Amino acid sequence: MIKPVRVAVVGVGNNTSALVQGIAFYRQTGSLGGVRRPTIDGLGVGDVDIVAAFATSPEKVGKDLTEAIFLPPNNFPRLDCDLPKAEVAVTKGLKDATEVDRVAKALAGAEVLLYSAPSGRPETAVAYAQAAREAGVAFVNTTSDPVARHPAEVDSFLKAGLPLLGDDLTSQFGTSILHDTLLRLLAERGLTLVSSYQVNLGGTEDFRNLVENPNTKKQSKLNALSTADKVQLAPLGYLPQLGSQKVAHLNLEAQGWGETTVSLDVKLKVHDPSGAAGVNIDLVRIAASALRRGQKGYVDEAAPLFKSPRGTAI
Amino acid sequence: MIKPVRVAVVGVGNNTSALVQGIAFYRQTGSLGGVRRPTIDGLGVGDVDIVAAFATSPEKVGKDLTEAIFLPPNNFPRLDCDLPKAEVAVTKGLKDATEVDRVAKALAGAEVLLYSAPSGRPETAVAYAQAAREAGVAFVNTTSDPVARHPAEVDSFLKAGLPLLGDDLTSQFGTSILHDTLLRLLAERGLTLVSSYQVNLGGTEDFRNLVENPNTKKQSKLNALSTADKVQLAPLGYLPQLGSQKVAHLNLEAQGWGETTVSLDVKLKVHDPSGAAGVNIDLVRIAASALRRGQKGYVDEAAPLFKSPRGTAI
Amino acid sequence: MIKPVRVAVVGVGNNTSALVQGIAFYRQTGSLGGVRRPTIDGLGVGDVDIVAAFATSPEKVGKDLTEAIFLPPNNFPRLDCDLPKAEVAVTKGLKDATEVDRVAKALAGAEVLLYSAPSGRPETAVAYAQAAREAGVAFVNTTSDPVARHPAEVDSFLKAGLPLLGDDLTSQFGTSILHDTLLRLLAERGLTLVSSYQVNLGGTEDFRNLVENPNTKKQSKLNALSTADKVQLAPLGYLPQLGSQKVAHLNLEAQGWGETTVSLDVKLKVHDPSGAAGVNIDLVRIAASALRRGQKGYVDEAAPLFKSPRGTAI
Amino acid sequence: MIKPVRVAVVGVGNNTSALVQGIAFYRQTGSLGGVRRPTIDGLGVGDVDIVAAFATSPEKVGKDLTEAIFLPPNNFPRLDCDLPKAEVAVTKGLKDATEVDRVAKALAGAEVLLYSAPSGRPETAVAYAQAAREAGVAFVNTTSDPVARHPAEVDSFLKAGLPLLGDDLTSQFGTSILHDTLLRLLAERGLTLVSSYQVNLGGTEDFRNLVENPNTKKQSKLNALSTADKVQLAPLGYLPQLGSQKVAHLNLEAQGWGETTVSLDVKLKVHDPSGAAGVNIDLVRIAASALRRGQKGYVDEAAPLFKSPRGTAI
Repeated sequence: MIKPVRVAVVGVGNNTSALVQGIAFYRQTGSLGGVRRPTIDGLGVGDVDIVAAFATSPEKVGKDLTEAIFLPPNNFPRLDCDLPKAEVAVTKGLKDATEVDRVAKALAGAEVLLYSAPSGRPETAVAYAQAAREAGVAFVNTTSDPVARHPAEVDSFLKAGLPLLGDDLTSQFGTSILHDTLLRLLAERGLTLVSSYQVNLGGTEDFRNLVENPNTKKQSKLNALSTADKVQLAPLGYLPQLGSQKVAHLNLEAQGWGETTVSLDVKLKVHDPSGAAGVNIDLVRIAASALRRGQKGYVDEAAPLFKSPRGTAI
Repeated sequence: MIKPVRVAVVGVGNNTSALVQGIAFYRQTGSLGGVRRPTIDGLGVGDVDIVAAFATSPEKVGKDLTEAIFLPPNNFPRLDCDLPKAEVAVTKGLKDATEVDRVAKALAGAEVLLYSAPSGRPETAVAYAQAAREAGVAFVNTTSDPVARHPAEVDSFLKAGLPLLGDDLTSQFGTSILHDTLLRLLAERGLTLVSSYQVNLGGTEDFRNLVENPNTKKQSKLNALSTADKVQLAPLGYLPQLGSQKVAHLNLEAQGWGETTVSLDVKLKVHDPSGAAGVNIDLVRIAASALRRGQKGYVDEAAPLFKSPRGTAI
Repeated sequence: MIKPVRVAVVGVGNNTSALVQGIAFYRQTGSLGGVRRPTIDGLGVGDVDIVAAFATSPEKVGKDLTEAIFLPPNNFPRLDCDLPKAEVAVTKGLKDATEVDRVAKALAGAEVLLYSAPSGRPETAVAYAQAAREAGVAFVNTTSDPVARHPAEVDSFLKAGLPLLGDDLTSQFGTSILHDTLLRLLAERGLTLVSSYQVNLGGTEDFRNLVENPNTKKQSKLNALSTADKVQLAPLGYLPQLGSQKVAHLNLEAQGWGETTVSLDVKLKVHDPSGAAGVNIDLVRIAASALRRGQKGYVDEAAPLFKSPRGTAI
Repeated sequence: MIKPVRVAVVGVGNNTSALVQGIAFYRQTGSLGGVRRPTIDGLGVGDVDIVAAFATSPEKVGKDLTEAIFLPPNNFPRLDCDLPKAEVAVTKGLKDATEVDRVAKALAGAEVLLYSAPSGRPETAVAYAQAAREAGVAFVNTTSDPVARHPAEVDSFLKAGLPLLGDDLTSQFGTSILHDTLLRLLAERGLTLVSSYQVNLGGTEDFRNLVENPNTKKQSKLNALSTADKVQLAPLGYLPQLGSQKVAHLNLEAQGWGETTVSLDVKLKVHDPSGAAGVNIDLVRIAASALRRGQKGYVDEAAPLFKSPRGTAI
């Protein structure tokens, strides 16, 4: 019997809700629906225990993790399964580097620190990475804040003899991968792209933030698309009614033989937090497995799961 | 200056209309919009001359090719370019093996015979292949009738020192390739397919035939889809108003992490004859190039462009 | 306190399942979501008791109604509410006029006979109408089989002093009403319709029957559309995966000022049995109210809820 | 033979392009495709002459009207017809009230002044109205700037013995009317709206302005929708590739009987300038006809064609 992975998580938002509930769901149902990798080095999707959680919201701190994941603004739905109490009280997250020791102590017993807070606080990300090293645990950075892109950080983990994974997870499934696949398909078949657009609508707090500060994300998405000059992203729309579901409308107009028209209209509906959790479950297993076999520094095996792996310019 | 490919074509339907008009269009405009392979062994898309054409419809026989391609039931639209007279009168096609010699004589001067008649008359396909061998020209079978799947036919072309390409061309872009790509993408990302459907609507004579005799095509399409048991093809719909345009509605319902719902709805609009002509232009250039360099028998280079290449069970 | 309507129902298919479950749902939740008329002459949607049920399927006969409604081929989903046992055993339906007396006796205590069997057995419909008269109950014909269109039948109910409602209920919401509304809107705004199509996909037994015998229904639908000559109905598609849900794809192509293009693409998803039950709940209340106040013969108040009210040619 | 209406137009944008080209198109083709009212008081859609035009863009001033309508940022497409020179040079528009006399003189010979400039300059609108009165011509305000909503303005036209029409034209066909029709349909059928959204994408200069100053328009649109609290408008998207075409994605989620799900997804494509011109052609005919028969003050007959007719709060 394999020992379950012991994970501490930073951030008790929708993504953590999806991860925590999903683990319970798969343990109970035995289902593998929507699971990309049933086992990684012998570890199943149910072989993951959340042993600590950090959050900044005063409402969440002190609550049991399985209660905190349903507090607003979280709006990932309740999955159809029982959710036994985690017996893990949410701990106050760190504000600055002076609190690294406190966090490191709270990591006792964990093997992996999954950094899943909102993006946009690079110093905080680096401070948690330091805490992970002090506590002797592997670090996974799912945010776009640079950690694994810092050569100095990679070095520190190498010296500490610990695995580092990051940065910026690629969702299991979402608008970018879909749009990109369709653009590639047209190119492959010799169709000439005339124009394309993408409209994203969502109802999470993340989406509200993106709508209020659209530029960063928009640009990074454009870069990911293969024929970017003809592809336009319309402004994101925050529609609270959608909850944690994202809706995307894609259009591709192209030319076939004789410049005749080919047009494609797509509507995608997907839960963003599921897209994150479906990758996080792989990342924590890869990280734990790397730690257990003594692998040090950047973990190349996980690089394809990130938008900005080691070597990406900051 | 490379010598243009001299092509004889069997069938003066929408696909031939798209081919003939497209060649004129690209010659005039210099555009490469919608062209998959600008050159093949030095041959551009304008380096193709149609030197003979065979048809069975009494209305088309005797007409100049550039006039015959607009006769009903053809409904591929007029492309936006001048179309100089072909100075090729449409010849009466063969009915049975007794007419092979007549056809072979009419092939004098051609390098490639492009067999682009409606599917469903296997003996006719084989008779034209024989005529091609007698005339010393390469043979391209774009229909689903078996020619290149017959080992005996491959042998005959090998002995005759002539290239053979077939069977059943894969469109440059259409519902199958799109549906297949999306199914593969979901599988690749670890999503679990719950159900999927595909509805095809079209307005060509081919479509009317498919609607009246749906079983064969339906089955062959299903085989091409990777997760066939959960994918359903709704009955084809013949809507004359669509002309040569095909409309397809695709739906894919899947599960992501925690069995949360992922749904995809797609509408595709595409001109089927363009999809055929965009591949035929490659096939005749590959065939001519093979002939010119003395390649004999089945041409493996063209195999990826066919649904039933050599070796496929009949 | 108003006395609940006592209804006997012929047919224990999806429509009856939706009716029985819906009544329980609204009683429990107090919701009015999806209810068109909260009260009719003081009768709420919960003021309806099913007191008898007739079916022909041997599997359903003898079972409690609340059990029988979930037997195949029924596939209307379970609504999210408790469903107390009906304490009504399903009775064997009549096969021919010799069994009218048996059925009339089984109607003792009922006020309304809701005829909700599959269409296509006109003699059976008329026999149940006779049983209703013998038992002194109002009759509602929801099928397209002619009852209320027969002047003789209207006369018989008039003489019997009983209400008659029919024929062929108009769904609360469906493809026809939507398509018609859009066609009317375009016409009203002065747009010129160029073409339009409608594709219907469904997964019920009714749908399977329509697919196998498409002509009747198709024609009757076409008649209902205002600009029928430019509107085409593609073949219906039976997709079992859809369950009791219907999916329709509608397209409308029109011209605005200067003959510029206006196009509309619509996807509709709706549960057909809900569309029937949402009207049946009104019909049985109108019928009971008419009976209670002594109204005789055809009930004009209900005519707008039928496709073929009194006076329609047979 | 009826005398053609003599119209002066303020604003040489897309809407004027659509109007000018459309008149030529219908004169040449004799078509009535997309025409809402073939005749108004005997006046056909071809019975309109543009006799003067005012613009502020230095590039347009001095050019013949039929040339100016194609200058950027205008992007309404060329209609498929010859466009004879208008022999009307675009005149410099007025900047403030000091130029009213100059404009009034330039209106000599006109019967109607069609005010079709961009919204947002209320003083300018009022100044043109004054010029119309001085010149003795009817005034049509198609913008949302208040003119006909000012009781003082109505009075002035009454005293001047001239017709006044306004404010803010309702497009012949667009997202609002479509969305509203669908919301009304659901309500009429007793479905309960759960949520609805509307995304508008466009490529005109008007659209760019709306995207940069979204609040006003958004609010006014919301007011027009019947169940506004559950309907959300996502941010508008400016996509230059769309040209003068607007694309809208609408979604409506509702409950039917038993709170089962009903969902509607709609994609609309329409040329906004055609929607304006298709109404402007009616407004100028109504205005001229009113002038000819001596009608004074606000013209009630035209009120239904405006979003803010007389009596609307400013």
